Amino acid sequence: MISVPEFDINEECPLLSGINTPDDLRRLPLEQLPQVCSEIRKFLIDTLSRNPGHFASSMGAVELTVALHYVFDTPYDRIVWDVGHQAYAHKVLTGRRGRFDTLRKWGGLSGFPNPDESEYDSFTAGHASNSISAALGMTVASKLAGSGRRRNVVAVIGDASIGGGLAFEGINNASLSNSNLLIILNDNDMAIDQNVGALNEYMTRINTSKAYNRLRYKVYHFLKRFHLIDEKHRGLILRFNNSIKALLTRQQNIFEGLNIRYFGPYDGHDVERIVRVLGDIKEMDGPRLLHLRTRKGKGYEPAEKDPVTWHAPGRFNPVTGERIVEDTAGKPPKWQDVFGHTIVELARENKRIVGITAAMPTGCSLNFMLEELPDRAFDVGIAEEHAVTFSGGMAKDGLIPFCCIYSTFLQRAYDEIIHDVAIQRLPVVFCIDRAGLVGDDGVTHHGVFDMAYLSCIPGIVVSSPMDEHYLRHLMYTAQTGKYGPFAIRYPRGAGVTVAWQCPMHELPVGKGRKLCDGDRVAVLTIGPVGNDVQDVIRSLGDKACHVAHYDMIFLNPIDEDILAEVGKRFSQVVTVEDGVIHGGLGSAVIDWFNDHGMAVRVTRFGIPGQFVAQGTIAQLRRYCGMDNDSIKAKILDIIG
Amino acid sequence: MISVPEFDINEECPLLSGINTPDDLRRLPLEQLPQVCSEIRKFLIDTLSRNPGHFASSMGAVELTVALHYVFDTPYDRIVWDVGHQAYAHKVLTGRRGRFDTLRKWGGLSGFPNPDESEYDSFTAGHASNSISAALGMTVASKLAGSGRRRNVVAVIGDASIGGGLAFEGINNASLSNSNLLIILNDNDMAIDQNVGALNEYMTRINTSKAYNRLRYKVYHFLKRFHLIDEKHRGLILRFNNSIKALLTRQQNIFEGLNIRYFGPYDGHDVERIVRVLGDIKEMDGPRLLHLRTRKGKGYEPAEKDPVTWHAPGRFNPVTGERIVEDTAGKPPKWQDVFGHTIVELARENKRIVGITAAMPTGCSLNFMLEELPDRAFDVGIAEEHAVTFSGGMAKDGLIPFCCIYSTFLQRAYDEIIHDVAIQRLPVVFCIDRAGLVGDDGVTHHGVFDMAYLSCIPGIVVSSPMDEHYLRHLMYTAQTGKYGPFAIRYPRGAGVTVAWQCPMHELPVGKGRKLCDGDRVAVLTIGPVGNDVQDVIRSLGDKACHVAHYDMIFLNPIDEDILAEVGKRFSQVVTVEDGVIHGGLGSAVIDWFNDHGMAVRVTRFGIPGQFVAQGTIAQLRRYCGMDNDSIKAKILDIIG
Repeated sequence: MISVPEFDINEECPLLSGINTPDDLRRLPLEQLPQVCSEIRKFLIDTLSRNPGHFASSMGAVELTVALHYVFDTPYDRIVWDVGHQAYAHKVLTGRRGRFDTLRKWGGLSGFPNPDESEYDSFTAGHASNSISAALGMTVASKLAGSGRRRNVVAVIGDASIGGGLAFEGINNASLSNSNLLIILNDNDMAIDQNVGALNEYMTRINTSKAYNRLRYKVYHFLKRFHLIDEKHRGLILRFNNSIKALLTRQQNIFEGLNIRYFGPYDGHDVERIVRVLGDIKEMDGPRLLHLRTRKGKGYEPAEKDPVTWHAPGRFNPVTGERIVEDTAGKPPKWQDVFGHTIVELARENKRIVGITAAMPTGCSLNFMLEELPDRAFDVGIAEEHAVTFSGGMAKDGLIPFCCIYSTFLQRAYDEIIHDVAIQRLPVVFCIDRAGLVGDDGVTHHGVFDMAYLSCIPGIVVSSPMDEHYLRHLMYTAQTGKYGPFAIRYPRGAGVTVAWQCPMHELPVGKGRKLCDGDRVAVLTIGPVGNDVQDVIRSLGDKACHVAHYDMIFLNPIDEDILAEVGKRFSQVVTVEDGVIHGGLGSAVIDWFNDHGMAVRVTRFGIPGQFVAQGTIAQLRRYCGMDNDSIKAKILDIIG
Repeated sequence: MISVPEFDINEECPLLSGINTPDDLRRLPLEQLPQVCSEIRKFLIDTLSRNPGHFASSMGAVELTVALHYVFDTPYDRIVWDVGHQAYAHKVLTGRRGRFDTLRKWGGLSGFPNPDESEYDSFTAGHASNSISAALGMTVASKLAGSGRRRNVVAVIGDASIGGGLAFEGINNASLSNSNLLIILNDNDMAIDQNVGALNEYMTRINTSKAYNRLRYKVYHFLKRFHLIDEKHRGLILRFNNSIKALLTRQQNIFEGLNIRYFGPYDGHDVERIVRVLGDIKEMDGPRLLHLRTRKGKGYEPAEKDPVTWHAPGRFNPVTGERIVEDTAGKPPKWQDVFGHTIVELARENKRIVGITAAMPTGCSLNFMLEELPDRAFDVGIAEEHAVTFSGGMAKDGLIPFCCIYSTFLQRAYDEIIHDVAIQRLPVVFCIDRAGLVGDDGVTHHGVFDMAYLSCIPGIVVSSPMDEHYLRHLMYTAQTGKYGPFAIRYPRGAGVTVAWQCPMHELPVGKGRKLCDGDRVAVLTIGPVGNDVQDVIRSLGDKACHVAHYDMIFLNPIDEDILAEVGKRFSQVVTVEDGVIHGGLGSAVIDWFNDHGMAVRVTRFGIPGQFVAQGTIAQLRRYCGMDNDSIKAKILDIIG
């Protein structure tokens, strides 16, 4: 245990401790804002060192957050955060400082903006690139309401999120509705990992036009100050400005090409300047984009130096910057690492294998392949749709793409799975990471729908390994390319097997296995929850002999031999799965018994028909009624 | 019946009748290509006048198709068509002229490029914006194969499709892999309706730099001709060219800003010129975009004048241009028109209602609202994701958006439905058009997955009306905004009710209705297939009294009172639905009986677990085993 000095908020943060709503902030003079920013950073460092969260993004967005709440009349004016990793300062300033130590905990504050939590959280955040479209919708609502009072709507989007297709669609539409939309581009030149994409490269080049932008801003400010422009003539002035710019820089700005007025880039850590710029552009009509350069981890040296690690660093010593990393020696590695090492192992032998990730090389552990086989591993950025169709194109011409996407983000590419892969029966391997309940990331991040939305697609193999050996066998089986689209889902975090490096072999597709036999009830599971059921059975002692347990491995195609055997021998069956009950394993089992005229009663454990908040996996399972105690009680009830 | 002169292909098309593969085309001298184009047009006009298809798009793409097959070594070189409305000339030139009159028919040619049909069809087409990503995947596969022989990959994309988010993601990635990708931008300034979006406006403005582009092309051509440049120095020349351009035009091209070399715009109907330009840019390395201006319907005056109507005109007199429009007087209108008039009727009263379509104003009949209430109706272009999130933003601030998207295209917005609407329980009304089997558009267009992929989402209302009155009641119910996300699915084409203009009232959500009672079997249906079941029951004569028929109206929440009643009274139940069996109504019914310990045997009719090609609805239902005869046989089997 590292000893850390006590943190007294009243002493360390004299201004912040008096800010309970943005109104309090707005009462401060401009020149005190830098101190507010500094106090917010102190507060975040202290709190997050003890209670882990998304650190570096929020540290980089402190000034822009303070400036937005200072200039805009929140919550009447809307701030729509994209993803929301960066919104901690926003939470601190909007009445949630006192509960900030409940962040990402069961019953506590969500790690992302959440309208159920605060009227200051205008829209759900969690999945990237939605802010511009949502904000545009709000500007339309405001205009149609016609209340007379102008409502400003601000979308705050990062340079990685703005590369997503949804964000582009929003930008492409923003200018058409003559909206009062302001886009803040929070450009830290990073996704969770390094940012990629041509748009990102372009934004780096925008720097060259800094001189002009400064000039334009000054001209505008000067004219406005002396009342030489008003709304009516503003268009004229700006067109004049644009001509100056074209002359000076000999380039057209992409955003201006898309009819969005561009301002920047400015230093995103100069809060007084941002306040002044916002004040000037706030009343303008039409869509505008303010480009702020920020630094991920700003104000905390270890995080500035290594923003990838400090994206979500876990607990750390706030004074020394030493991360409190759990000793994992002798413990099973993460599923991700087993995946990451195994794909490299397979790819060395099978030259057709390629790896694809959508902005999560570290999260998926595809970084091992990116390092060893850089020509055959691709980080396409926040672009799940492209990732899948790109994989489809590669598969059509002979490759075996392993397309690694978190379950919840794969929802973005649902059409592409059907249209660009499944219809053509292409051998794309969907490595569905973070499948099932994910814990503290909460409602937007649980990967619980994939089995339901995939298993209605004709011809797709849907599988989930119970342990790391089976993950490897499934990957080995999939890379043969014999089975068309092949989904393998596995959860977040540590696995269950220390000695995971087994020899690999091909599995019979659509065949499960019997783990133990019994005479009164059969339990059918898919994926790692099978291990929990094994624990339950072991805890039954003498009665364990009444329980048969089958690890189905495959949801699609389902093992009909097992179902026939179970249907013949048992009148009661229990299914357990880490996904929504509706349309999952249990439903498939019930359907099969019905279709084959077998009168078997099936009790299904899984995620019920409701959205689930954040918490530990154990808390969430209990909430869903799929914890070991509940399963055990049901089994005991059946076996009597 | 209009009399039409006999069409003798050998006489009318002396060149085309000798072209059975692109090799035959490539043997012709350049100066004969205009005649080939003219003959293809004659052939298309003749064939499509008798056998309807997508007319105007294909007429506009004749020259670019001929040029591509002339210059590139297809099928070794890949042409990836986007959507594929425009690929008829491609089909004609690649060995399918003789079977062209089977287009869009059962057992015949697909209306879209289809790899199952020809090796010249490189990738599935049907849903917009996928070509760039798929083509990029192919360039990677070619590079990794390392066969030594360069493979050119060409994506042909329209100016509407390129505005889709997926296309942007592809463009954003194209420059990173140093690929041999050539994008042909087929710019006819149209989607199916008028094209929209800032990118589209931008492309219109590109014209201003025509002078420069012509100059650049000439300089480059001159230098190449005299061997003054080779691959090594090409980059240098192009950079020099770009500087000239910046000087001349004072603007940067958006595509070049995204690291894609831009050429154009050129006249897309000057086939000899296109051939020469393609020859020049074909061997260049790195991603390139060739911008061709084309005219939808080119070469057929009625279509040029009214390309919206002539997108898919049905049959027509090729000589006079008179369309052979079926007399619908006294027949029920299209579901779409009932929807379109009803939303206007509701919106006049309820000021919170807004309408959104993603590039299908005419297809969805939202054009009535766009005309009468232009401030409250939005065509966002090919941008389904944005359409849904934009609707979410509007709903969050008080509006009731009716978001109209074809079932198959709504797959694109699956994540947005969950993340941006359902989690917040926002009152977005999803008007799911073209739900169920759609007929001749075939495998990429059937709207059969929506009930499965929607019903696993917590809290969403999923409904389908059996007739137009219920469509109106459902719309009335949804516009109250009381129920959160509310999906209403209805099929393509004509409805069943002539006098559709009934007074509207609110329906109890989650309640179905009993249409007739019986004593031996209960048939549960959702949506218009209920009318077919009514026909079946009527055809039973005396035995009809044994069949109870329930129109469930709602899949989510399902009517538990009906299920309890049915479960108590019947041991055999039949379900019929126009969607995939897996995860649909039948599965929900089976699950409910299981969960309530009721031993009821359910026989499910619907789309089985396979993709379905094109044909008439009757043919496809027979293929799926869900035609009236099959349903009747099962009922008779049960009632004995």
